[in-house]
Amino acid sequence: MALTGVIRPGHAQIRVLDLEESIEFYSNVLGLIQTGRQGDLAYFKAWDERDHHSVILRGAGEAGIDFFGWRVADTATLNQLERDLNNYGITTERIPAGDLLETGERVRFTVPSGHVMELFAEKTEIGNGLGYVNPYAWNEAAERGIAPIRMDHTLLYGPDIELNEKLFTEVLGFHVTERIFLADGETMLGTFMTCSMKGHDIAFIRNEEPGKMHHLSYLIESWEKVLRAADLMTYHNVPIDLGPTRHGVTRGMTIYAFDNSGNRFETFSGGTYSYPDWKPLQWTWEEIGRAVFYHQRSLNEAFLNVYT
Amino acid sequence: MALTGVIRPGHAQIRVLDLEESIEFYSNVLGLIQTGRQGDLAYFKAWDERDHHSVILRGAGEAGIDFFGWRVADTATLNQLERDLNNYGITTERIPAGDLLETGERVRFTVPSGHVMELFAEKTEIGNGLGYVNPYAWNEAAERGIAPIRMDHTLLYGPDIELNEKLFTEVLGFHVTERIFLADGETMLGTFMTCSMKGHDIAFIRNEEPGKMHHLSYLIESWEKVLRAADLMTYHNVPIDLGPTRHGVTRGMTIYAFDNSGNRFETFSGGTYSYPDWKPLQWTWEEIGRAVFYHQRSLNEAFLNVYT
Amino acid sequence: MALTGVIRPGHAQIRVLDLEESIEFYSNVLGLIQTGRQGDLAYFKAWDERDHHSVILRGAGEAGIDFFGWRVADTATLNQLERDLNNYGITTERIPAGDLLETGERVRFTVPSGHVMELFAEKTEIGNGLGYVNPYAWNEAAERGIAPIRMDHTLLYGPDIELNEKLFTEVLGFHVTERIFLADGETMLGTFMTCSMKGHDIAFIRNEEPGKMHHLSYLIESWEKVLRAADLMTYHNVPIDLGPTRHGVTRGMTIYAFDNSGNRFETFSGGTYSYPDWKPLQWTWEEIGRAVFYHQRSLNEAFLNVYT
Amino acid sequence: MALTGVIRPGHAQIRVLDLEESIEFYSNVLGLIQTGRQGDLAYFKAWDERDHHSVILRGAGEAGIDFFGWRVADTATLNQLERDLNNYGITTERIPAGDLLETGERVRFTVPSGHVMELFAEKTEIGNGLGYVNPYAWNEAAERGIAPIRMDHTLLYGPDIELNEKLFTEVLGFHVTERIFLADGETMLGTFMTCSMKGHDIAFIRNEEPGKMHHLSYLIESWEKVLRAADLMTYHNVPIDLGPTRHGVTRGMTIYAFDNSGNRFETFSGGTYSYPDWKPLQWTWEEIGRAVFYHQRSLNEAFLNVYT
Repeated sequence: MALTGVIRPGHAQIRVLDLEESIEFYSNVLGLIQTGRQGDLAYFKAWDERDHHSVILRGAGEAGIDFFGWRVADTATLNQLERDLNNYGITTERIPAGDLLETGERVRFTVPSGHVMELFAEKTEIGNGLGYVNPYAWNEAAERGIAPIRMDHTLLYGPDIELNEKLFTEVLGFHVTERIFLADGETMLGTFMTCSMKGHDIAFIRNEEPGKMHHLSYLIESWEKVLRAADLMTYHNVPIDLGPTRHGVTRGMTIYAFDNSGNRFETFSGGTYSYPDWKPLQWTWEEIGRAVFYHQRSLNEAFLNVYT
Repeated sequence: MALTGVIRPGHAQIRVLDLEESIEFYSNVLGLIQTGRQGDLAYFKAWDERDHHSVILRGAGEAGIDFFGWRVADTATLNQLERDLNNYGITTERIPAGDLLETGERVRFTVPSGHVMELFAEKTEIGNGLGYVNPYAWNEAAERGIAPIRMDHTLLYGPDIELNEKLFTEVLGFHVTERIFLADGETMLGTFMTCSMKGHDIAFIRNEEPGKMHHLSYLIESWEKVLRAADLMTYHNVPIDLGPTRHGVTRGMTIYAFDNSGNRFETFSGGTYSYPDWKPLQWTWEEIGRAVFYHQRSLNEAFLNVYT
Repeated sequence: MALTGVIRPGHAQIRVLDLEESIEFYSNVLGLIQTGRQGDLAYFKAWDERDHHSVILRGAGEAGIDFFGWRVADTATLNQLERDLNNYGITTERIPAGDLLETGERVRFTVPSGHVMELFAEKTEIGNGLGYVNPYAWNEAAERGIAPIRMDHTLLYGPDIELNEKLFTEVLGFHVTERIFLADGETMLGTFMTCSMKGHDIAFIRNEEPGKMHHLSYLIESWEKVLRAADLMTYHNVPIDLGPTRHGVTRGMTIYAFDNSGNRFETFSGGTYSYPDWKPLQWTWEEIGRAVFYHQRSLNEAFLNVYT
Repeated sequence: MALTGVIRPGHAQIRVLDLEESIEFYSNVLGLIQTGRQGDLAYFKAWDERDHHSVILRGAGEAGIDFFGWRVADTATLNQLERDLNNYGITTERIPAGDLLETGERVRFTVPSGHVMELFAEKTEIGNGLGYVNPYAWNEAAERGIAPIRMDHTLLYGPDIELNEKLFTEVLGFHVTERIFLADGETMLGTFMTCSMKGHDIAFIRNEEPGKMHHLSYLIESWEKVLRAADLMTYHNVPIDLGPTRHGVTRGMTIYAFDNSGNRFETFSGGTYSYPDWKPLQWTWEEIGRAVFYHQRSLNEAFLNVYT
């Protein structure tokens, strides 16, 4: 296959303060579909995704991200990537199949920024509800709540993001799409990477405290659906951080908002794509405002200081 | 890299009846950017593409497609894919670097449907005009004519499309995203394949006559830009085949129209994406109308009978 | 008031072949809200309208329109307009208050094209469901079925449309916004008129048979909602006559479709507005295709021959 | 006519600090069409307007609005409205025809909030550039700069807005569409009124200082064009006050920005319409944030304190 190795974001496990309240929020306001429950874990997928789940909520004492998992091409790839990680000096741990519902064996490791990542080769394909034969293009599930199409990427905060970039590109096969630099013109503030041809599948922002999450992002179909998302956020009294606006980085049209545990999430549409032979774009400190919030052209205070 | 082997559509060489008239049409109505001229060849790129060119017009006595070229990851990949093709029984030919402007050596071969395909590893990246540092999201070039973002895919007509599918998936690393079947439920009318995660990079429709082109397709940003494209087609008196409408296959929002040589082209936005582990979608003969023209729910006569 | 006399379209009474089936269609597919039932009459409003009803379905043996009603400024205006009509030579009839639910006395008359029109000054304002204090901008009713904002206008077929135009402009205070002419350059094929500043509140197309309806039209918010309407029509297997496309006349973005009795209806968005001092636009026979279906640039057979 | 009396906003004369720079800004960034020059006055129209001009820039030492003019139905109406104003106790002044280019005699008066208003019955209709016969729906002028469709309304700051409301409704025939109230639940913070069926043609916000302008507003076609406007503002480094967002009042989708003299202007699309018999909507102090900036749900500091 031309698309091989690490194929796509597979799942994010997110900590929420009140699981029942959060199930209500993720089901009816964000509009994901609950596909499973297992003790203090609730499993969700976006309506147009095919895998059994992409978001797992865990009831916990503090918000944040437990881990982010990547679907790889197959079991041989999983084994090879584990060997590659080990050879690179990264310790890995095997989580047995079935530990997460409908999910095969996972290879878990911690990246330099302090985030826990996982690779896995198997998760049950349950389909998007439209069927595989003569599917319709519309679905009632597409309009229940904000109803994103898919969990798209995450942006994480932590130290040593150069080491992360090196690991993701040299071992895991990602390529860099865009980078933001600090005032010295040399220190990276942020790096955006993809394992396929998206604008990004993951991004890291430099931050002293390790293992933090800035946001988990969901794709919606259009700028008009971004407006609808904002209208629904107001209707349900969801706190909006910023938006609707555009990002300079990736060109995506976006809203940042907070779930009822304080985890920031993004609903976005559009934006660029990328190919591995393309030169990465660069953003300088002087234009950091436009890089992040393209129309406002300045950071809001929350961007650098509020994360979970 | 996770995206490797054949990476993306690289170029289509199209025959036009009057080169000067066509340069005018492709520049000012379709809104591509001319990047070169070489005898009876005129080179174009979509404004947001980075490579030197993606569409080459050749003045000729009859319309149609000369060949379709694919960008591969690097020279080692080019050499390996040529060996793979040869081992598979496909004869290849080397076209020297520089034969096409700003383009490296090409490996040319003919697929069972009678179409000429090419692989190449090098083409000059000239950028999208926005620069690589602090790029703006808008550009005057984005509004000159229809102004697609990129040449996206082609749909070709010819025999033996099962053999094409086998070749593209087994040798070139594509995966099948959707298939259409004839009334017997077994014979494929069409197959849609991608080398990355798009809804399709290429499609083949069964047809007695080999080597024919149904359309060359250009991506635009939104359904509102599809409307703008239709308005511009009326403004410039471009014959519209059908649209604006949606396709069932790929869910894309589309217009089919004809250039001034009778080559059908498509301007479309949206649609699905795919991953190699996903089961292909199937369309049956009973729903062929909805598969192709989702709102009309019937084929127009031109769909099967007009091609170049 | 600056907006006085005849203020807006008030109601259309439409004949349907199977009332229960039609109630289902108008409620769940078109997405109107049923507000009353009275024998063989079912009352509906669009979700964002404030009056008790704007569409009345009557179970009957053949499809078509019974009458179209206009809201006037107040009772004094109603009385004055009746006198003006009588002085002009038009016979009127009074229908007592309460004959239609929540509706005051109506003045009924027949116009030269054979259509029955009504004027009325009172209908209960029941609101749009968002309340009058701090209303939200979104509502679940806005997404139940196609969910138009309002019944907007009707296009009627009949003879003597010049006399209609004269009556509507000279007695009822409408102004002409656009006209279509036949091949002789003098005979009107159609006239479009408004009582306020819309692109049209009513239009008449020349036709031998009197009293016929071409379509009843509903306003939706955007071109993207036009796409959604088309997707829903396919989902519910509603026959589409033509669209999505644009009209040349009024510039509106539109779909023509048929209810389950064969009555054509339109869901449209956008388009022009008008002021009474503006010169009317003219469309000539040579451009009749573009006048009606702006992108197709030709009439389909149904446009002139299918009506109820 | 059903639409009579005061028909529509006719013109706003705005003070700018550097006329040549402002001509450049209004022509190429905002995208109005310059239609005349007369000493320190420059005349503009939006591309889709038909009158000779709707915006007049005057080079002056300080920013702000000189006057706002209203087109009335005809000369008899002009004379009658002057008598009505005088009888109501408002002093009027006649400005001779030709004082403003292509404009008839104007009746000028000052309203209680300290703003100068004008009525006029004649201004040359020069058309929208598409012609009156078989007009196209698209035009290059529609994409030069932000390119609004029309100057739509103004929002003014001053005292005694209750008296303004009384004058506009009782003498000039406007009707109130929405009102905002202060914390006491009785004092109006703002009143929104129309002379036709728009969401508003004019609005007044309570302010100690008389005669001030909050913004002059331009209509654009869609939420996607609002995004394009924001993108162009960033491209041309135009300061954005707030947006893209939605207003609660009128439901319009909007951006507030500043011209190069500090005059706030709005580019908006969508929003509600109104009829004179409808009950006005009310907004309470507790929801003032949502009333003004629907998604942010709070006022920014500039809203109440920055005006010209």
